[in-house]
Amino acid sequence: MRKESDVLGEMMLPDEAYYGIQTVRARDNFAVSGRTAVEVPHYLWSVAAIKQAAAKANCKIGALDEKLADAIVQASQEVMDHRFDDQFPIDIFQGGGGTSTNMNANEVIANRANEIITGQKGYETVHPNTHVNMGQSTNDVIPAAMKMTCRLNLHQLIKEVAALEAMLEEKTQAFEHVVKLARTCLQDAVPITLGQQFSGYLHQVRRLHQSLKAASEQTLDLPLGATAVGTGLSTHEGYLDQVYVELREISGEQFVAEENFFDGLQNGDTYLEVAAQIKKLAAFLSKMATDFRIQGSGPRAGFNELFLPAVQPGSSIMPGKINPVMPELINQIAYQVIGNDVAITMAVEGGELDLNVWEPVIIKALFESCTLLTNAIPLFVEKCLKDLLPNEPVCREYAEKSTALATVIATLFGYKVGSRIATAAFEQNLSVREVVLAEQLLTPAQADYLLDPMVMTDPKASTAAVKRYQQEMAGSDQTNGQPKQVEETV
Amino acid sequence: MRKESDVLGEMMLPDEAYYGIQTVRARDNFAVSGRTAVEVPHYLWSVAAIKQAAAKANCKIGALDEKLADAIVQASQEVMDHRFDDQFPIDIFQGGGGTSTNMNANEVIANRANEIITGQKGYETVHPNTHVNMGQSTNDVIPAAMKMTCRLNLHQLIKEVAALEAMLEEKTQAFEHVVKLARTCLQDAVPITLGQQFSGYLHQVRRLHQSLKAASEQTLDLPLGATAVGTGLSTHEGYLDQVYVELREISGEQFVAEENFFDGLQNGDTYLEVAAQIKKLAAFLSKMATDFRIQGSGPRAGFNELFLPAVQPGSSIMPGKINPVMPELINQIAYQVIGNDVAITMAVEGGELDLNVWEPVIIKALFESCTLLTNAIPLFVEKCLKDLLPNEPVCREYAEKSTALATVIATLFGYKVGSRIATAAFEQNLSVREVVLAEQLLTPAQADYLLDPMVMTDPKASTAAVKRYQQEMAGSDQTNGQPKQVEETV
Amino acid sequence: MRKESDVLGEMMLPDEAYYGIQTVRARDNFAVSGRTAVEVPHYLWSVAAIKQAAAKANCKIGALDEKLADAIVQASQEVMDHRFDDQFPIDIFQGGGGTSTNMNANEVIANRANEIITGQKGYETVHPNTHVNMGQSTNDVIPAAMKMTCRLNLHQLIKEVAALEAMLEEKTQAFEHVVKLARTCLQDAVPITLGQQFSGYLHQVRRLHQSLKAASEQTLDLPLGATAVGTGLSTHEGYLDQVYVELREISGEQFVAEENFFDGLQNGDTYLEVAAQIKKLAAFLSKMATDFRIQGSGPRAGFNELFLPAVQPGSSIMPGKINPVMPELINQIAYQVIGNDVAITMAVEGGELDLNVWEPVIIKALFESCTLLTNAIPLFVEKCLKDLLPNEPVCREYAEKSTALATVIATLFGYKVGSRIATAAFEQNLSVREVVLAEQLLTPAQADYLLDPMVMTDPKASTAAVKRYQQEMAGSDQTNGQPKQVEETV
Amino acid sequence: MRKESDVLGEMMLPDEAYYGIQTVRARDNFAVSGRTAVEVPHYLWSVAAIKQAAAKANCKIGALDEKLADAIVQASQEVMDHRFDDQFPIDIFQGGGGTSTNMNANEVIANRANEIITGQKGYETVHPNTHVNMGQSTNDVIPAAMKMTCRLNLHQLIKEVAALEAMLEEKTQAFEHVVKLARTCLQDAVPITLGQQFSGYLHQVRRLHQSLKAASEQTLDLPLGATAVGTGLSTHEGYLDQVYVELREISGEQFVAEENFFDGLQNGDTYLEVAAQIKKLAAFLSKMATDFRIQGSGPRAGFNELFLPAVQPGSSIMPGKINPVMPELINQIAYQVIGNDVAITMAVEGGELDLNVWEPVIIKALFESCTLLTNAIPLFVEKCLKDLLPNEPVCREYAEKSTALATVIATLFGYKVGSRIATAAFEQNLSVREVVLAEQLLTPAQADYLLDPMVMTDPKASTAAVKRYQQEMAGSDQTNGQPKQVEETV
Repeated sequence: MRKESDVLGEMMLPDEAYYGIQTVRARDNFAVSGRTAVEVPHYLWSVAAIKQAAAKANCKIGALDEKLADAIVQASQEVMDHRFDDQFPIDIFQGGGGTSTNMNANEVIANRANEIITGQKGYETVHPNTHVNMGQSTNDVIPAAMKMTCRLNLHQLIKEVAALEAMLEEKTQAFEHVVKLARTCLQDAVPITLGQQFSGYLHQVRRLHQSLKAASEQTLDLPLGATAVGTGLSTHEGYLDQVYVELREISGEQFVAEENFFDGLQNGDTYLEVAAQIKKLAAFLSKMATDFRIQGSGPRAGFNELFLPAVQPGSSIMPGKINPVMPELINQIAYQVIGNDVAITMAVEGGELDLNVWEPVIIKALFESCTLLTNAIPLFVEKCLKDLLPNEPVCREYAEKSTALATVIATLFGYKVGSRIATAAFEQNLSVREVVLAEQLLTPAQADYLLDPMVMTDPKASTAAVKRYQQEMAGSDQTNGQPKQVEETV
Repeated sequence: MRKESDVLGEMMLPDEAYYGIQTVRARDNFAVSGRTAVEVPHYLWSVAAIKQAAAKANCKIGALDEKLADAIVQASQEVMDHRFDDQFPIDIFQGGGGTSTNMNANEVIANRANEIITGQKGYETVHPNTHVNMGQSTNDVIPAAMKMTCRLNLHQLIKEVAALEAMLEEKTQAFEHVVKLARTCLQDAVPITLGQQFSGYLHQVRRLHQSLKAASEQTLDLPLGATAVGTGLSTHEGYLDQVYVELREISGEQFVAEENFFDGLQNGDTYLEVAAQIKKLAAFLSKMATDFRIQGSGPRAGFNELFLPAVQPGSSIMPGKINPVMPELINQIAYQVIGNDVAITMAVEGGELDLNVWEPVIIKALFESCTLLTNAIPLFVEKCLKDLLPNEPVCREYAEKSTALATVIATLFGYKVGSRIATAAFEQNLSVREVVLAEQLLTPAQADYLLDPMVMTDPKASTAAVKRYQQEMAGSDQTNGQPKQVEETV
Repeated sequence: MRKESDVLGEMMLPDEAYYGIQTVRARDNFAVSGRTAVEVPHYLWSVAAIKQAAAKANCKIGALDEKLADAIVQASQEVMDHRFDDQFPIDIFQGGGGTSTNMNANEVIANRANEIITGQKGYETVHPNTHVNMGQSTNDVIPAAMKMTCRLNLHQLIKEVAALEAMLEEKTQAFEHVVKLARTCLQDAVPITLGQQFSGYLHQVRRLHQSLKAASEQTLDLPLGATAVGTGLSTHEGYLDQVYVELREISGEQFVAEENFFDGLQNGDTYLEVAAQIKKLAAFLSKMATDFRIQGSGPRAGFNELFLPAVQPGSSIMPGKINPVMPELINQIAYQVIGNDVAITMAVEGGELDLNVWEPVIIKALFESCTLLTNAIPLFVEKCLKDLLPNEPVCREYAEKSTALATVIATLFGYKVGSRIATAAFEQNLSVREVVLAEQLLTPAQADYLLDPMVMTDPKASTAAVKRYQQEMAGSDQTNGQPKQVEETV
Repeated sequence: MRKESDVLGEMMLPDEAYYGIQTVRARDNFAVSGRTAVEVPHYLWSVAAIKQAAAKANCKIGALDEKLADAIVQASQEVMDHRFDDQFPIDIFQGGGGTSTNMNANEVIANRANEIITGQKGYETVHPNTHVNMGQSTNDVIPAAMKMTCRLNLHQLIKEVAALEAMLEEKTQAFEHVVKLARTCLQDAVPITLGQQFSGYLHQVRRLHQSLKAASEQTLDLPLGATAVGTGLSTHEGYLDQVYVELREISGEQFVAEENFFDGLQNGDTYLEVAAQIKKLAAFLSKMATDFRIQGSGPRAGFNELFLPAVQPGSSIMPGKINPVMPELINQIAYQVIGNDVAITMAVEGGELDLNVWEPVIIKALFESCTLLTNAIPLFVEKCLKDLLPNEPVCREYAEKSTALATVIATLFGYKVGSRIATAAFEQNLSVREVVLAEQLLTPAQADYLLDPMVMTDPKASTAAVKRYQQEMAGSDQTNGQPKQVEETV
């Protein structure tokens, strides 16, 4: 056992512990969720990288002895390499500002650095505040580490979004030839191809991809150097420039100092921005997942137009049942992501005065959301999207029998005529084609090119079909191609 | 290795695994959060308790062989005793309905039951679906287990709320004599005692305590027996009554069948109710925490009227700084709880047709919220509330110098006069007492009893003071106690 | 023009204005939403009723001259009778606490009371603060009025919920005989009757009905009498009891003083409770609306099992299209109600110290939610629910062809056999009945009673069918009614 | 009275009505909120502008007779000029897709166009669907109009944000010289200038300004031309290009067709993006408002470091009380905006298949949020920010007496020494300066330049001061400027 002390008193620590007195206090004060900072990808790495960069910078500007600096650099590296993950026992929920996580890092690095130099833990040579935290404050270290963590997590998320985009490109092409019926308000509408449906997803994902990249760019501006309240108090001359040189080298990312540190400490809008883009992604994925669930409903008493790959049995009681579990996973993740956005928003809105101290809950909620999507997207791509198949005969049948094909009739003869045809088709349980032929509104040849569902999915083909019809009629009845709706008064 | 199969194919499983093929599929399909059902207090216990109750019931009604039943009962008990926690590797997020968790339990119990009977894992004698899941469906097991989990978690939460209530009772009494200034809109108002302030907290907590108990009562009605869609299909005669007899005995809780099973499967309003009561609790705790932070602000440049116990150093850079970390913990938990309520609401609103299948995200969000508060309240009570102390001299000084004491003058002489006095006090940097004496509006003796802050905090004393004054004046000037405001026109 | 003044200066007011200087200031300060308190049903009535009750009470206890009291009573009554609605121009959003609305009422009533007494507007005889507001503060008047407004609005909402309940009762009975297929995870499950589906709605609404009534009871406890901070400062002896006597008589509601006024001013949990119950109602209605939209999808390329009454044409371009606009209205209202709940929650959580001053946004959000549902439910009942009809042939066909009927086979022969039958039915595009007959697993007579969808919807009938089968088999093969699953190993 | 008919039947309409049968049906179906589309700034203008552009385009490409087109153009212009606002009686909440608002516009324009041509209302010459809606569908008109409405509303909001930015620039400069104390966790921290605090606001607003502009750019891509489901079905050749030419000319905005119309109809991410940026703005404003309320708390029993302009009396009972009503307005608006974001998110997440039809609630919630901020910001700027003043003596006193000035001591002598000094200052109720002089840690001259609060606010000055001290000490004791903390072991 070794003794440590702080302003509140003394405490005995087990010999093997690299953390110190403040870590123990915080661990006991905040034991609420059972989750620790270790679970947030890249977060402790970012904190330790800052410690390393600061030690290097303080050494280069002459504020920190080289021997001490070297030990801090090595100890920080070991934290970055996950060799001390078990030395970070504090709950992810904790007091405002994340002081406890910063002090946990300071203590682990100080004890390890002392050990490196002296063979003994303790703070005699390297002190957690004076040396490891030199030129820093929790108030700039934690938000800087959070933004770095955003950056590094967004890289992974964006990579998965790009893979989703690639898969959607593939599907958009693969489904180009599959004609089906679109629905609006869940009611039968006019034809569309499955490829067109997927092209909508694709373009949405492309836009989300760009939004995420733009949000990621905003995470490069760090408040590191602000120290306690933005004034940089207690930094040594030359530190501010040098620490960013070091940090960029360590991380390989183009981190720079924020233009205004007061802004940097007061405001959490960057987290709101990242959360908003993640929420947009989640909302889209959930919408697409719902589409798949609706289109895959059945197999006999539903839409039954999409085959989702079976990945596990669906029921403990109903044999043979297969459920759309991958889309369902996505829907549920979206609910949590949207809830987390509310938590993050409240944390940002609830900021007070010179520092937004609600960082711990932001870290918890934001990176939970990010991680859920980063993990779920590849599962969804691999286990749902990749082998998803249309039920082509059903798709085609739906497209052909929709009474909404009367839209074309309305285009040619006015809405009143279209309405009459649609009603007749519905009431007599006929297709629109059957009704218009029965009424001799179109010739069979005209019906062929005007009522072909595939033609209707192609803007050029459908306007050409209308034009062809109008030219034919203009030739025959001199109405000059104007719609004939005048024949029928309201 | 042993082989298992399901409708999708075969799979080799390690000999030591008690879980089976469906567990493995689900583990791989849903690896998104790193959290499992094991982390939800009482949840697996509840699922296994249902399995045990069903086996006992099915045995008693003759549907299940006694030897099989005994083995299932023993295996279930071992799950309830946490001996197989490591056999539940599936993510808490999963496909709709929680089929995977139900099957995980079925598989573990079946393998263990076979082992008990035959010395070998496998399903030859006891089958996960046919026997362990007999008379059940995921669709009734999981929501029943969720409500049981609500019940058991609410017990713990309510216990902590009761302890909070007791502590607030103590503080309400202890602070009865401390006169201070109330603020509305953060602006100086009229006097109040700190005990009165705390009595407001106390009564709120009493009401929350009752609300939580009422919500807890709603969790006693279970859909167990509904099986797949509410019709009880595949249960054997007598099962429904017997399974509840068993379940009540196992749990010691008065669980009964819901009045209408279709309702029970379709709707998640009970979760919304529990979430709403938890959210109310969180919102209150957060409000109280904010009060403490504001009243404890300083020590020199803030309100400085409350001393919060120091539980850890507050800053890595500013020596001597102590932060209100326990209230801050509460505020942040409230943000997450409120966000989780949104997630739960979306899950309930998003239900479709005959079963609300969004249970996994409800479990995750609801019990995270519940656990956070259950853990945080005793920490808050112990580390913040218990040793919280008023800064009495500051409190008294605030109460005495408020210009809002002119409210009493307005009561006696009309609002216009009150307003003039308040303005004079503010502009001349005097107390209200000083101004009214200077203006000879009251005699010093009258000022003594009318402007005593402590008197103003007591409804009886303050109305008596006004009455006494009016009687004095009625005696002297025959105005019959009516306010004298008429002397001053608007 | 007439002149008024306040602590900030003087202002000229048009002769016809009954409102005064503070109203004008507030109108100009808060012109943000274009909505006023007049739009909140029962709110101004409640404020004015309090003014009337206070005047009566203050008169009876001798604190207010009878002539003044009479004029205030009459003026308040005129406000309650909506004769001065155009004199309340202040935005519903306003400064904390709703002071401006209280002062608006004080000014209108004072000017009107003076006019009644003297023939002239002005405050010479009746002063807005001294007399109209006597014994009151915005801080007790506004929350008391809000709770009264809750009460009165909930009466209306509950009335509509009761009508919905009655209609669901009717439908539950009317649809008793309609057998259809249930779905879980949007996938075909086992049979259910449409009446059973609706019985789920009915029981949910019954429970919501009770919850709303319970919440409504909570709104009877008012903070009136608390005045500024809960201490009742500036009230006269006897006022507290008398004002409630008067208020109960005026309103016909059993309003009583809250047990603890500090609690009453600090906390907004009653609003959260009302909001939570309204949100539960909205979430349920939205879920039911979504069911109708899914079940009514089609008419040819969807579920097509429910006919929703057509209430308007559905498309400007697609003739004959009819959309489920009434359910869609409900879904959207639910989204807003859920959003409003977040706003209300933030307002309650964001309370500070001795008074929660965020009442204006609570009023706006809570009563918007309440009014939306109060208005929407009868429209939904009348225009959607009343004439909703099943597509019985489609319903029956779905029920008969579901492969999930194999659940019965699994009950009899174990899950493995059930699974094999279901797979065969699916792959060969046969019904379960056809497969079991082909496999001679059941006799045609057995299939008749075991695979009848209507039997499966009735717990008693289905357990009886299983029992009958087991008895038949026990008679024939001496297996004693035990499932035969042992014949097939895993 | 005149007769109109639709697919559901006939109806008599008053002669003066320009709206038609579908408007009446919708008005009666959706009477829930009492709010109409007229209340959404620029929305009906946008719908009518589309009608006008379409008529011009259809005329130019020969699909629409010139006489009809001219009448439609004139009628649309009259709608744009607000001459028919009273002809749009439908609730803002309505069926999915906003069909009713589109048909309302079609009917008003058709009736008016017929009147222009024939002197009579009716659809004989100009038909609402066939002509006014030619080449359009509700499904492209409404989302296109919504994006146009976003664009036009964002212009106004951005203008107000720019004015806020200008005011913050002014204040940042004006408050440059005011030294005060920063607080983190509401606890006394180190000095800062009020100008620095405001520079944080300024830079945040600059960033928000840019974000809003970027979001606004996203609203230029319209789905107009997609018609019913994205395929452009029923448009005539040449229409797509021409309608944008016309729309750009009419609006003066660079509206273009979306790259992919399927995406455009399926997804509402643009609304989420606009809502997110508005929410960020609201969250920031609310945070700043809270700062002002905290800093302005008092006047005697609070922070009392900021004077907020008095804009109205604060209390009906406490004379002289002035409340921070303008900041309070902002806080409450933020709560509603955040709630509305949830509503919008649910609407976007809840989209199904080929069209997100939840546009009505998005319109309601999004533009309520936008309007609230657009109206509130100038009020806040004018009535709060413009005349806000620091209480300079109080600010300076706070800065000087903070024990956190010991941070400088920690920088020079290590954290342990700093900690000891801070504790001594606190316990002995002394300033840090007094303690270090008493302990002879610094000379009075050194204390002058090291402990000057204004120096501490300036990064260059404070690092220079540290350097100067170290050089002085290096000259005197040869420690080479290294911190002296080694003298004190842990």
